[in-house]
Amino acid sequence: MSVLCSLFSVLLLPCALRPHPPLPFVPFLLYCILSYILFTLVPVLALLEWFGCHKFRPGKSSLFSSLLSTVNCQRTSVGEHKMAATAASSDNLNDGLTLQMVRDSLIRQEDTIVFSLIERARFPLNSPAYDPSTPGLCASLVEFFVQKTEALQATAGRYENPEEHPFFPDNLPPSLVPHFKYPEVLHPAAMSINMNKVIWDMYFNKLLPLFVAPGDDGNYASTAASDLECLQAISRRIHYGKLVAEVKFRNEQKDYEPPIRAQDRNALASLLTFADVEEAVKKRVAKKAMTFGQEVKLGDNGDKGKYKVDPAVVSGLYGDWVIPLTKEVEIEYLLRRLD
Amino acid sequence: MSVLCSLFSVLLLPCALRPHPPLPFVPFLLYCILSYILFTLVPVLALLEWFGCHKFRPGKSSLFSSLLSTVNCQRTSVGEHKMAATAASSDNLNDGLTLQMVRDSLIRQEDTIVFSLIERARFPLNSPAYDPSTPGLCASLVEFFVQKTEALQATAGRYENPEEHPFFPDNLPPSLVPHFKYPEVLHPAAMSINMNKVIWDMYFNKLLPLFVAPGDDGNYASTAASDLECLQAISRRIHYGKLVAEVKFRNEQKDYEPPIRAQDRNALASLLTFADVEEAVKKRVAKKAMTFGQEVKLGDNGDKGKYKVDPAVVSGLYGDWVIPLTKEVEIEYLLRRLD
Repeated sequence: MSVLCSLFSVLLLPCALRPHPPLPFVPFLLYCILSYILFTLVPVLALLEWFGCHKFRPGKSSLFSSLLSTVNCQRTSVGEHKMAATAASSDNLNDGLTLQMVRDSLIRQEDTIVFSLIERARFPLNSPAYDPSTPGLCASLVEFFVQKTEALQATAGRYENPEEHPFFPDNLPPSLVPHFKYPEVLHPAAMSINMNKVIWDMYFNKLLPLFVAPGDDGNYASTAASDLECLQAISRRIHYGKLVAEVKFRNEQKDYEPPIRAQDRNALASLLTFADVEEAVKKRVAKKAMTFGQEVKLGDNGDKGKYKVDPAVVSGLYGDWVIPLTKEVEIEYLLRRLD
Repeated sequence: MSVLCSLFSVLLLPCALRPHPPLPFVPFLLYCILSYILFTLVPVLALLEWFGCHKFRPGKSSLFSSLLSTVNCQRTSVGEHKMAATAASSDNLNDGLTLQMVRDSLIRQEDTIVFSLIERARFPLNSPAYDPSTPGLCASLVEFFVQKTEALQATAGRYENPEEHPFFPDNLPPSLVPHFKYPEVLHPAAMSINMNKVIWDMYFNKLLPLFVAPGDDGNYASTAASDLECLQAISRRIHYGKLVAEVKFRNEQKDYEPPIRAQDRNALASLLTFADVEEAVKKRVAKKAMTFGQEVKLGDNGDKGKYKVDPAVVSGLYGDWVIPLTKEVEIEYLLRRLD
C-alpha cells in the first residue's frame, strides 16, 4: 500500500511540473528529479528525523543526520566518553576495589546465571524466535529483540556502567538519565575489550540446545527476554575478568609487569590459572543448579535428582566457556594494562 | 533543522508549480495544496508507515493507518481478536486444561517470583529510577522503561498469549511474529479483566520498600529491568486466576452456577477459599525464599538464617496480595462466566 502510494506520487509529479516555456526531455528530467528531491525526499527525511529523534525510535540512529552530516555518534554511545576519562593508575588505590569485593561479586553472579538458565528452561526451544528470515524484522526475532532492548537500556544508562557490555554496540542512543559517577577503577584500555560476539555464538549454538527441551509453545517474546537475561548475566560475568585482572595486577604488580612488557600471553595465562579454584567453582555452580533447580516441597527435602537445569550443563558452561573466556578477558586487559 | 527543511520545501512548491496557462489566485492556491498533499504528504505518510511498521517504531501504532483508515488497531493489540474468537463453552473440555496443569503452573510460577525478587534485591532502592520528573522522559524512568519494553514485547507477540497482561495496554503495536495458536480455554469476557494498576501500586508503594536496601548504585536500567521481571511474574500469577476459575467452574459447575446467576460475590469468595491450602502456599513460598536465597557454599549447607530476600516478605506478599488479588480475578471472571 505504502509503496503503491509513493509510486503513484512519483509518477504524477512530472505531469504537475510543466515548466513554461516547455523544456527539452533531458533538462525536463533533471528538473523533475530536482523537484522530487526538494518536495518529497527532503520533507520525508526531515519528518523521519523529527519523529525518529523525538518520539519513535529509541533504538535507531538518525537517518536524516547520517545522510546530512558526517557526525559519528557511534563511539560515545557505549559509554566511551566516561571510560576514556578514567585514569586508573596503579597508584590510585582509594577506589574501593578489593579482592574480597571481586570474589563476592563473582559468587553472587553465579546465582544470577543459574536463575536465568532455570528461567529460560521454562520454555521449549521455540525455534521460530531464531529464524533469521522473520518477515518484517530483517533479522531473527531474538536479534531484533536484543538490539531494541539494548537500545532502550542504553537510554536508561545501562552502558554507562563499565561492567556492562552491549551485544550490539553500534548506534546505541545516549543515556537520558541522571549521570552516575561509577568508581573509576579500570585502565581506559578496558573499553576496547568486548567478547560478546563469542558469547552470542557460544550461547545460541552450543549452550542453548543442551538445556532446553525441543518444542514450540508460542512464547517467543518471553523466550527472547529470557535469552537476553542469560546473555547479559554470562556476559557480565565474563567481562568481570577486567576487574579480576585489575585487582590481581595491583596485588602482584611485580609478578605481572614482566610478562606484560614481554606481551607474553602464555606466562600471563599461567599466572592467572589456579586449577583447584577452577575446580571448586565448577562444583559450586553445579551445587547451585541442584539447590535452585530442585522442586521445593513442604515436608520433605524436594525431589532429589530431578532438576530444572542439569547441574552438569552448568558446571560445563563454567568449565568450557565462562572460566576460559574470563581468562581471555583478563589476558587482553593485562596486555594493555601498562599502555 | 528538520522543520526548517520542511518549511523550505513547502514554500518553494508554488514556485515550481506554474500551471500553463496561469491560473487566478484561488484556483492556484487549491492547485498548490492538492499538489502538496499528493507529492509530499502522501509519500511522507507512506514512507513513515512503511518504515514504522517494518523497522522503526515498535512502540507506536501506525500513523498512516490511523490517518488513512478508521480501523482501530488499539484493541486488537492486547490479543483481543484471539480472545474474542475464543468459544470456551463448558462442553469444550478437549482443550487440555486440567486442575493438575493449573496447579503445576502456579507452583512453578512461585519459583519465578522468588527468583525475580532475589534478583531485584541485588540493587539498592535506586530512587532516581522512580523520580516522576526525569528530564526528557515525561515520566519516571521505570514507567518509560516498562512502557517501551511492553511495546517491544508486543511486537514480539507477548500479549497474544492470554496469560500475559500489559501494564500499559493503550496503543500497543501489533505482533510482527508468526501467529501461534494458543489453546482457547477462557471465556471471551476474560479479556476485560486487568488488575495491573493495583499490582503496580502495590509493588512500588508497598512491596519494594520491604525487600530492597536503601541507596543508589547507579544501575537504573538494570533496576528497571528487574522491576519489570517482578511485575510481570506477579501479574502473570495473579491473572492466572482466570484459568484457576475456569477449571474450578468446569469441575463444579453445579456449585458455581447459582452464585454466578445471582452475581453474589461473597458466595463465590466462599466457594473459592480454602484456608489450609492458602496457608500451605504461604509456607511453601517462604521455604522457596530460604532455599533460593541462601548462600550456597561447598562443604556445608550454606549460611542458614541469612537470605537474600526475607522469607517473611515473600509469604507476606502471597498472603496480603497475591492470594487475595488472584481471588479477585477469579471472582471477576466467574461473574462474567455465563454471559
